[in-house]
Amino acid sequence: MIMWFIRSSLFLLLLSVVTSFYASRKTQLSATPEPAVLNVDLGDRSYPIYIGTSMLENGDQLNKHVVSKKALIVTNTKVGPLYSMKVRQTLENKGVEVFEVVLPDGEEYKTMYVLMRIIDAAMEAKLDRKSTMVALGGGVIGDMCGFAASIYQRGVKFVQIPTTVMAMVDSAVGGKTAVNHPSGKNMIGAFYQPDAVIIDIDTLDSLPDREFKSGIAEVIKYGLIRDPEFFKWQEDNIEKIIQRDTGCVAEMVSRSCSNKAEVVAADEKEEGVRATLNLGHTFGHAIETGLGYGAWLHGEAVAAGMAMAADLSSDSDLLSDPTIVERTKALIRKAGLPSSIIDNLPAEADYEHGVEAYREMCRSLTSEKFLDLMSMDKKVSDGQLSLILLEGDRLGKSVITNKFAVDKLRLVVERYCKERA
Amino acid sequence: MIMWFIRSSLFLLLLSVVTSFYASRKTQLSATPEPAVLNVDLGDRSYPIYIGTSMLENGDQLNKHVVSKKALIVTNTKVGPLYSMKVRQTLENKGVEVFEVVLPDGEEYKTMYVLMRIIDAAMEAKLDRKSTMVALGGGVIGDMCGFAASIYQRGVKFVQIPTTVMAMVDSAVGGKTAVNHPSGKNMIGAFYQPDAVIIDIDTLDSLPDREFKSGIAEVIKYGLIRDPEFFKWQEDNIEKIIQRDTGCVAEMVSRSCSNKAEVVAADEKEEGVRATLNLGHTFGHAIETGLGYGAWLHGEAVAAGMAMAADLSSDSDLLSDPTIVERTKALIRKAGLPSSIIDNLPAEADYEHGVEAYREMCRSLTSEKFLDLMSMDKKVSDGQLSLILLEGDRLGKSVITNKFAVDKLRLVVERYCKERA
Repeated sequence: MIMWFIRSSLFLLLLSVVTSFYASRKTQLSATPEPAVLNVDLGDRSYPIYIGTSMLENGDQLNKHVVSKKALIVTNTKVGPLYSMKVRQTLENKGVEVFEVVLPDGEEYKTMYVLMRIIDAAMEAKLDRKSTMVALGGGVIGDMCGFAASIYQRGVKFVQIPTTVMAMVDSAVGGKTAVNHPSGKNMIGAFYQPDAVIIDIDTLDSLPDREFKSGIAEVIKYGLIRDPEFFKWQEDNIEKIIQRDTGCVAEMVSRSCSNKAEVVAADEKEEGVRATLNLGHTFGHAIETGLGYGAWLHGEAVAAGMAMAADLSSDSDLLSDPTIVERTKALIRKAGLPSSIIDNLPAEADYEHGVEAYREMCRSLTSEKFLDLMSMDKKVSDGQLSLILLEGDRLGKSVITNKFAVDKLRLVVERYCKERA
Repeated sequence: MIMWFIRSSLFLLLLSVVTSFYASRKTQLSATPEPAVLNVDLGDRSYPIYIGTSMLENGDQLNKHVVSKKALIVTNTKVGPLYSMKVRQTLENKGVEVFEVVLPDGEEYKTMYVLMRIIDAAMEAKLDRKSTMVALGGGVIGDMCGFAASIYQRGVKFVQIPTTVMAMVDSAVGGKTAVNHPSGKNMIGAFYQPDAVIIDIDTLDSLPDREFKSGIAEVIKYGLIRDPEFFKWQEDNIEKIIQRDTGCVAEMVSRSCSNKAEVVAADEKEEGVRATLNLGHTFGHAIETGLGYGAWLHGEAVAAGMAMAADLSSDSDLLSDPTIVERTKALIRKAGLPSSIIDNLPAEADYEHGVEAYREMCRSLTSEKFLDLMSMDKKVSDGQLSLILLEGDRLGKSVITNKFAVDKLRLVVERYCKERA
C-alpha cells in the first residue's frame, strides 16, 4: 500500500513536470510566427525554403531535416562565433553528434585547397554516406559546403542556413555549388541540391552594411530579367530596404526566392532559361577575377556588370526603351552599389593587400584583359561567348544570345575601363 | 561548248577521285572486324561500350563521340607515349583542337592535388562546357579524368579509352569517379557517366603481366556475385586467359562488361544491388590504404579481400557450401593473384619506397588498424558497417548485409593479419 502510494505520487509528479515543460514549450513556440514555406519543385529532389525569424532558436526546421547520427557544421570565422552554438545545441539535444569546421572568411578563400579542409574534417569525424553537412554562412560557405557535400563519398545530405542577403536571395537556392580557379570564377563545381534551405532573417542583424547592399544586386536582377512588378516595388521601397525594415526585407527575400525557385524548377541544369539569372555576371566575374578575388564583393561586381549589360542591350538595339537603362543604374546607385567599375573602391573596402595594391590591380585591368577574362566564362560554348541581355520595349524581358555585335561589346568595355582611370 | 566539255571532264575526274577514295576506305574498314557494342541503359544518359581491335587506328568510334571543337586527352607517362598520338591524329584530322595532360602513373597519384593538374590544363586550354575530355589509360586515369570532367565548369563530356584489364572489365563502365584521401580510398568523387567507352583489346599488348592479372580479380567477382556460368568458364579457361589468348580475353572483357552494364542500369547510384560489385573491396581498401597506395595493385587487394569475404561468409553460415570458398581461392591463385595478405609481395612488386619500407608498413598493419580502416569505408551507414558476402548453397548469390557477427569478422581479420606475419 505504501509502495503503491509512493509510485502513484512519483507518477503524478513526473506527469506535472512533463506537462508544464510541454506547456512552456508551446508558449515559446506560439510566440514565434510560423515561417513562410516555398517549395523548389524538382521531382524527388524537391526541397523546402523556410523564411522566418527566431528559427535558429526554436530549431524545428533543423530538427526536421537533419535526420542523421552525425552532422558537420561548415562555417567561417565571422559567422561561426555568432550562430554555430545555436545550431549545435539544437542538434545535440536530439542526439546528433556534431562536428564543426571553421573556414577563413572571404571570396579569396573559395578555393579547392580550402575546400579540402571540409573534406579532411569530414574524414576525421568519420562522416558516412548518411551524415549531413550544414552550411552556416554566406554565399562562399554555401557554395563550398554544397560542393564538399556533393563530392564527399560521392554525395551526402546538406542543409543551407544562409546568413547574408546574397545567400538568402540567390546562392543558397538552386544547387549551384563551386569554388574558384585562379583564372576563373566558379570554374570547379557541381549541380547539387540541398535538402532544405532555412532562412532566419534575424541572422542579418550581424551583417555589415556593405555586404547587405551587395546582396541587393541579385534582387534587382530578378526584377530586370522577369519580374517588372518586383522591380517597381524595389524602386518604391529601396530606402526602407536599405534601412533594413524587417517587413520589407522579409518580402524582398521571399519574392526573390519565389523567382529563383520558379526558374530552377524550370531548368535545373542551366540548359536554357536559368542562364538569364546570370545577367551582369559575365561582366561581374571579369571584374572579380581581374581585380583579385576579395577586392570587390560579388554583388558589387554584378551591379556594375548589370549596368554594362544594360548599356550593351541598348547599344545593340535589343532594348528599345532607353529609360530602362537609366532606371536600372538609378536603382543600383540608390542601393549603394556601383554602376561603374571604380566608384565604391577603395573608399569603403577593407582590402587586405592595401589601397596601393588595389590601385595597381585596377590599372592593370585593361579593356583587353577584361575581354580576355570574359572569354573564360562558363557561358562560352564551342568558342563563342553568350551574354544575358535585356530586350524589348518594357521591363522584365531578357535573352541569352551570342548575336550581339562584338565591336559594340568592345566599345562598352573600353568605356567602362576608361571611365574609371 | 568548250566550257561545257571542261566542266563535264572536271566533274567526271572529281567523281572518280571520290569513288576511288571511298572504295579504298571501304576496303580499309572491312579489314577491321566491326566491334561488338553493348549498351549501358540509363535513359537519356545511356551510352555504348565498344569492344574490338584496331579501334584506335581506324578512329571511327572516337570520331563519332567527340563532337566538340576542343578535346583534352588525359593520360599518364606510361600509356601516353604509346597511344596518345593515335587519338590525337584521329581527332585533329576531323578538325578538333587537341590538348593533352600527362599525369604520373600509379594509385599513389590518385589525389585531389594531381587532379587539379587536369583542371589547370583545361583552364589553360580554355576548354568550355561543350568540350570533351578523353581518358586514355587504366582505372586511375579513368577515375580521375571522369571526376575532373564532372566538376570542370560543373560538367563536360568525357569518353573512356581504357587500356588495362581492370579498367576494361570494371572501372571504365558505370560512372563511378573518384580520387583517394590519405585516410580512405575513393572518398572524394562523383557519379558521372561517360559518353562512350571504347575498348581496344590491342592496347593490352603493352600491359605488364602483374597488371594484367590484377584486373582478373574483378572478372572473378562477377562470377561469384551473379554469374555462375561465367565463373565456370573462367575455371575452364584461366590458363588461356593468363596466356592472353585473344579470343578468350575478348570474351572475358565482353562478359564482364555485360554484367557491369546490367547492374549499373538496375541501380546507378548504388542504392541497392550495385553494392554487390564491391565484393572484397572493403577488405581490399583496408589493405590498400593500410599498406600505402601503390604498394599493392587494386586487383591484388580485391583478390585477397574476396578470399576474406568468402571465409567470413562461410564462418557466418551464410554460405552453406564450403567448396565454394575453396574454388574461389583456387581460381584467385590460378590467376596469379594473392588469396592472403602477404604472398605476392615484395617479390614481384616494384615498390618505389623500397622493400624495407614495405615490410615496416606490413608489420604496422595490425588487425586493429585493419578493422579501423574498414570502419572508414563508404559502406558504413549511420555508424554501421555493411559488407558484401556470399550466400546460399550454390555459386552466384551475394548479399549486402550488416547482420554478420562482429566477432567472426574480427577473427577472420586477425587470422589474415597473423598469417602474413
